[in-house]
Amino acid sequence: MTTRSDLQPDLVERLLAGDRRALARMVTLIENRAPEARQMLARLHAHGGHAHIVGFTGSPGAGKSTLVMQLARELRRRDQRVGVIAVDPSSPFTGGAILGDRIRMQELAGDPEVFIRSMASRGSVGGLAAATRDATRALDAAGFDTIIVETVGAGQAEVEIVRAAQTVVVVVVPGMGDDIQAIKAGILEIADIFVVNKADRPGADQTAAELRMLLSLDEHRKEHPWRPPIIKTVGMTGEGTPELADKLAAHLASLKKTGQLAQRDGRQAQSEMLALLHQALIERISATIGNDEWQRLVAQVVERESDPYTTADELARRIGLAPAAERTGG
Amino acid sequence: MTTRSDLQPDLVERLLAGDRRALARMVTLIENRAPEARQMLARLHAHGGHAHIVGFTGSPGAGKSTLVMQLARELRRRDQRVGVIAVDPSSPFTGGAILGDRIRMQELAGDPEVFIRSMASRGSVGGLAAATRDATRALDAAGFDTIIVETVGAGQAEVEIVRAAQTVVVVVVPGMGDDIQAIKAGILEIADIFVVNKADRPGADQTAAELRMLLSLDEHRKEHPWRPPIIKTVGMTGEGTPELADKLAAHLASLKKTGQLAQRDGRQAQSEMLALLHQALIERISATIGNDEWQRLVAQVVERESDPYTTADELARRIGLAPAAERTGG
Repeated sequence: MTTRSDLQPDLVERLLAGDRRALARMVTLIENRAPEARQMLARLHAHGGHAHIVGFTGSPGAGKSTLVMQLARELRRRDQRVGVIAVDPSSPFTGGAILGDRIRMQELAGDPEVFIRSMASRGSVGGLAAATRDATRALDAAGFDTIIVETVGAGQAEVEIVRAAQTVVVVVVPGMGDDIQAIKAGILEIADIFVVNKADRPGADQTAAELRMLLSLDEHRKEHPWRPPIIKTVGMTGEGTPELADKLAAHLASLKKTGQLAQRDGRQAQSEMLALLHQALIERISATIGNDEWQRLVAQVVERESDPYTTADELARRIGLAPAAERTGG
Repeated sequence: MTTRSDLQPDLVERLLAGDRRALARMVTLIENRAPEARQMLARLHAHGGHAHIVGFTGSPGAGKSTLVMQLARELRRRDQRVGVIAVDPSSPFTGGAILGDRIRMQELAGDPEVFIRSMASRGSVGGLAAATRDATRALDAAGFDTIIVETVGAGQAEVEIVRAAQTVVVVVVPGMGDDIQAIKAGILEIADIFVVNKADRPGADQTAAELRMLLSLDEHRKEHPWRPPIIKTVGMTGEGTPELADKLAAHLASLKKTGQLAQRDGRQAQSEMLALLHQALIERISATIGNDEWQRLVAQVVERESDPYTTADELARRIGLAPAAERTGG
């Protein structure tokens, strides 16, 4: 055991005891995908399961950060401890835009019952999604009541990240007109609550009406007891934020009552375990054949000297993955 | 060997000899994920690599199907054999809208050098992406020069599907205004060619100008020699389609010249092999522990009796995936 290992149990214990610096350090380890984080996260998992995880997504420019700040204030008034993880998969199209919002959010950062942290992409989308999930796990174990995961935009990466939440809030702004349907194909489907933000602008009622119509067309929704509410807010003034906080609580209550919370948690646990097993698969391939041979196999497939099916089958056999029935024959 | 196995080599041979019914049958087997398709696809792979694979994505209502039909006509005038695979991940929001377009496309279906086929989702997005890739493989082996993969919308599933193409065309319509940036975060980044369709509507020049500005802001683009052109088309009249066909050819030439085609093909082969290995992993877990125990493990993680990291590690060991270093210790 190294000195580092001797120190690390402390970090978990300090985090569980409410030490903000320990939490901040933990999130940094998570963000850097530090190898030592894994074992600490395994320990933290047992202490979680109490927080309400809320995802916020929507177009850049929809005012999400300001709205999240107002919501955090409202939740503080309700004596909740609030964590905010702002996730930026670093699209070049959205890059600098949120800096101003980030600074505005610092107003809340002086409150010891609020923890705000940005996480940027350091590699794959899958990596960022895993890091976000683990940061949520750390905040949950640290005793935060509501953890808000806010994404910069509403792209593919963002959808993957927010769908891990228990409640997904989709933020739109008035004046999207005909395009609401066009824009939101993948996004509308994951929404539990819609917010029409900047509702002091013209067209807010029309946007809300269009959303309502789209929802009524959604066949999948008809089986569900929860009808996503459409809330009008003004992020700059905080108007509508109490109603949003109410609806968040109502959605969580509905999830619990219908047994859907356990279902969602189950799906999350499954997909996390599969992701971890996939990672073990990659590591095993890497340890068995190394990168050079992998690249050679890929090149053979590209050159049509072999095909992906046969190559994958052989590789599966080499790393010990062939089904039992086939193994005796090979 | 069953009678079926004796017959199947015929199907591949007939397909390679240009038999349309054999091709149609093959695509049906692919769509149904029939087990016997796998071995046939492995054989077909060797005969491909000649087609230009073009993906079309964009909002529903952007007129993609009509545009694709016009493009197919233009490519026929250039003596190309054209395949069209229209993919519908069956979003409830976009469901019925394309039926009219599908019917219009049947105008081309009488041409023996054109093959048109719709594929709908029969399960996971990953499954549909794999089926689309395999249908492309079959058409490629059957000697089609250009294979167009057209998606219904521009959601997460669609992006996953079209990014497998060699050239990605993103179709927008005038009047999206401020929202182009908002809408397209994930889509803009994968575009090789932009089409402003319905360019006879007001605002086409402005939409093109906005796209041009967005592109100029994209840092990633600066490293690439290819500048995505922005083409104005009118799908109903065919205006702009010759230019689109020219740009498709130019993009393919650029990919070849810069070595990017081989890079893209390599990335594709890698991700396909990883997907096949992941499938082998799932089958191995299923064969080793079965669904009941898997569900029990998931439930233990949800109930916080265990954690996903430890559970995944143990499972990896049981199916033989633990790294060599760890195995001697276990």
